[in-house]
Amino acid sequence: MNPHYHISPVGVIRNTDDGAWIEVYDEFTDALLGIDGFSHLMVFFWFHHNDTPEGRARLQVHPRKNPDNPLTGVFATHSPLRPNLIGLTFCRQTSRTGNTIHLEKIDAIDGTPLIDIKPHIPLDRLESGTVVVPDWV
Amino acid sequence: MNPHYHISPVGVIRNTDDGAWIEVYDEFTDALLGIDGFSHLMVFFWFHHNDTPEGRARLQVHPRKNPDNPLTGVFATHSPLRPNLIGLTFCRQTSRTGNTIHLEKIDAIDGTPLIDIKPHIPLDRLESGTVVVPDWV
Repeated sequence: MNPHYHISPVGVIRNTDDGAWIEVYDEFTDALLGIDGFSHLMVFFWFHHNDTPEGRARLQVHPRKNPDNPLTGVFATHSPLRPNLIGLTFCRQTSRTGNTIHLEKIDAIDGTPLIDIKPHIPLDRLESGTVVVPDWV
Repeated sequence: MNPHYHISPVGVIRNTDDGAWIEVYDEFTDALLGIDGFSHLMVFFWFHHNDTPEGRARLQVHPRKNPDNPLTGVFATHSPLRPNLIGLTFCRQTSRTGNTIHLEKIDAIDGTPLIDIKPHIPLDRLESGTVVVPDWV
């Protein structure tokens, strides 16, 4: 029997005609200390609309919902259907007012639960070398 | 009352003198279709050793456990102490045999639960512009 781990939202993603921002819950205010020093953030969220047994059991998709793309395993895509419904997007922060972090834009729908934020640190990224991707990308 | 979401491991990370690799559980084999087309993967894992009320309540740390670094909110670091214990590292895959994906190296300890894999797609990354980070980085 596999263990289960628990995720609890730490805030909410807003994505409206008025812009894109993150609202971090008050109890996590202290976790934001020093975040202004980074231009770019990795924003982790939960694909809550797909949190059903069917959504989490789907292991293959046609990427970007395009039937012309080859059937592909979800671990080889960024599909919102996957066993653990973790979403990740890279954002540029434009300003912060208290627990509200304004973003240039975000690839997540309004109301999406925020589950983590990590700073973008270039050293964590690919140091060198050629990146290879399949044709469908 | 906040909702809670559930994460279940999809495999395990191995990091030994014999190398670094991922073992994906058999039930998720289908999710790997097409992953060979990518040179680099984003490997998501769970900081299971810190899954305690104390570990998850820690909101500020001295980055890299260096007391000379300024006290910083965990959302501004990659600390393994954070409210939701999601770890992320970028890896180059070197070969795959069935459900075993061999990696050049991985920044996670042997036995760490694997919770997701996403391909590295350059379009998802930062398109342009200068990345800014604090002095402690």
